[in-house]
This record gives sequence, C-alpha cells and structure tokens, in this order.
Amino acid sequence: MREAFDAELAGFNRQLAELAQRTRDAMTRATTALLDVSLAGAAEVIGDDEELAEVHHRIDQQALALIARQQPVAGDLRTIIAGLRTSADLRRMATLARHVAELVGQRHPRPVVPSEVRPTIVEMGAVAARLAAAAQEAITTGNADAAAALERADDEMDTLLTSLYGTLVVEHRWDVETAMDLTLLGRYYERFADHAVSVAKRVAFAVGSRK
Amino acid sequence: MREAFDAELAGFNRQLAELAQRTRDAMTRATTALLDVSLAGAAEVIGDDEELAEVHHRIDQQALALIARQQPVAGDLRTIIAGLRTSADLRRMATLARHVAELVGQRHPRPVVPSEVRPTIVEMGAVAARLAAAAQEAITTGNADAAAALERADDEMDTLLTSLYGTLVVEHRWDVETAMDLTLLGRYYERFADHAVSVAKRVAFAVGSRK
Repeated sequence: MREAFDAELAGFNRQLAELAQRTRDAMTRATTALLDVSLAGAAEVIGDDEELAEVHHRIDQQALALIARQQPVAGDLRTIIAGLRTSADLRRMATLARHVAELVGQRHPRPVVPSEVRPTIVEMGAVAARLAAAAQEAITTGNADAAAALERADDEMDTLLTSLYGTLVVEHRWDVETAMDLTLLGRYYERFADHAVSVAKRVAFAVGSRK
Repeated sequence: MREAFDAELAGFNRQLAELAQRTRDAMTRATTALLDVSLAGAAEVIGDDEELAEVHHRIDQQALALIARQQPVAGDLRTIIAGLRTSADLRRMATLARHVAELVGQRHPRPVVPSEVRPTIVEMGAVAARLAAAAQEAITTGNADAAAALERADDEMDTLLTSLYGTLVVEHRWDVETAMDLTLLGRYYERFADHAVSVAKRVAFAVGSRK
C-alpha cells in the first residue's frame, strides 16, 4: 500500500514538473512572438494554453482521487495539497504567458515593444524563464537549495519592472497606448515571476517541515 | 463523529464567509481612500491586509487539520479543498485591494483618478463590492442561484475596463504616468472581480455535483 502510494505520489510530481516545463516554454515562446511580432507564434501559445488548462485540470482530479482513495496521513496530505497549490500557480503562469501572446495580435502590425525598451523585455523574459526553470527543478528534486538564487532573480525582476516603468514615465517618448501595453506587459512578467517563486518556496517549506 | 465533523465544516465555512466580508470591505475602503486621496484611509487598508493574511493562513491550517483528523470521504473532501481554493481567491482579492490603496501613497498629493474618469472608477468599485457580496452569499448559503447575476456583473466589469482603457487611448488627455496608474488600477478591479466570480462558480459547481 505504502509503495503504491509512493509511486502514485511520484507520478503526480512528475506531471507537475512536466507542466512546469511546458509553462516555462509557453512564456519563452510568448516572449519570442512578442519581440518578433509573430502572429503565428502568438497563436500557437494561445492555442496551447487550452491544452495546458486541461493538463492542470487532470492533475487536480488525480490529486483529489489520490487523497480520497489513500486517506494519506498528515505529511503526505500536506504534500498533495502543496501540489494542488503548485498546480494552481502553474495554471496562472500559463495564463500570463497567454496574455503576453495576446498583446501581439491586439497591436498588430504595430510592435508592442519599441526598440528602446527591447533589452529590458528580453531580460524580463530571460529572468521569467530562469525562475520557471528553478521552480521546475524544485518540484523535480524536492531541493530547496535554490531558494536564495530565486530570491535574487525575483529581485532582479522587480528592478527590471521599476526600470521599465521609470523609463516610460521619464522619457515621455511614447504614446499612451504604448505606455499602457508596456505597463500590463511588465506586470505579466512580474506576476509570472511571483508565482514561480511561490512554487519554489513551497517546496522549500515542505522540505523544511519534513526535516 | 459525523455531527462533530459537520459542525467543524460549518465553522470553517463561517470563517470563510467572514473573510469574504472583510475582503469586500477592504476593497470598498480602498476605493474610498483612492477617490478621497486619503493617506490615512489607504494606510488602514494596507495595515489590515496583514491581519487578513493571518486569518487566511489560520483558515488553511484548520482545513488541513480537519482533513488529517477526520479523513473525510470524497464529497466532504471536495468541499474542504474547494474551501482552500476559496481562501486563496480571497487572499488574492485582499492583496488587490491593498494594491489599490498603495497607489494613493505612491502618487500623493496628486490624485490617482482624474475627475473625468471618476465615475468609471466609482462604478468599478461598486461592481467589485457587489461581486464580493455575491461570493460571500454563495459561501454562506451554498446557493448558486446568483451565478447568472454574477456573470452579468463580471461582464459589466469587463465593459468598464474596456471603456476606461478606451478613454485613456482616445482622449490623450493625460500624461503617461496617469495612464499607467489607471491601467494598473483597472486591472486590479478586473482581477478582483474574476476571483469573486471564481469563488461563486466553485460553490455552484459543488452544489451541482452534490445533487
């Protein structure tokens, strides 16, 4: 019984890790579509999001079935509930990647990102991918050692957002529509990063409470 | 045992409903502080948010303890897990109310909301409060009849957001900073509304699956 349960739990975790991988991939592709002003690339991300929503839903159903069937003890139960929360974070992250992709079509053929702030957005995309990778790693290894590095990356994202918003306000170079797009865009990356940090911190907490 | 469990579950639900009430109250007070440019009012909302975070945390701990202790069957388990998700939605809603309040201090003494868009923001605040009230009612009564009315109110919020963003783009009357503030502000109300709808829909779904 214990062995079967452990195997199911490991399978559940593997699916979460895979969802994390696909979520990171979605944000990376959304960023590329955004910078290349690629409608096809954006449409792909938007289409894939429905699939990711289904995977998320399936993972959740499995977790509930696992609890109902195995009546896990406190520690195992906490692990599964933590998995449900991670699943919810990943769902939100994928939606944010979709929002990034949606901006492409909303402004097409005008690019959302003016060349002057392009480096900032490239960097935000890179930090987002790094954080999502760290979240995935935390899920896979149950290892919370990366927590400090994550905090640094999250701080980096906050600095990038402040810099982006500062540029918009100080330079007065862009029209209101561009400023609004970039305000939302910055927020999408920042929220994505926050959720990735939540995922990794939750693993850190779970590891801490098992020790 | 069953009776004790039902009593605990009812208590858990009462606390969720109370948290919903306080969350709605937070958004209402944040909107008032925003419109009155009241630093004191904003500070109160921000201070209260820590307390709400603690209530949220306590509710979650209780739910976990309840599952671990009572090993509930599938239906009851689903109810408690749904409660955990509602608790997470309410947490996010309270954070969004705090974000609205935080804007007041960031722009003080300049008001965030120019008089021309004031009616829109007043309306957004009212719709947000209505949706939060409906969410609370759904938690309290377990009654999903309000679901259609909720959808309408949520559509109303989307329309208000589109109108707000449209005004900003078309009128070109405001500086970039004001436009950015209003972009984020609109998004805060819209996200708040979305979470309230999620809460009510979840109740509807739970009621549906019990029938």
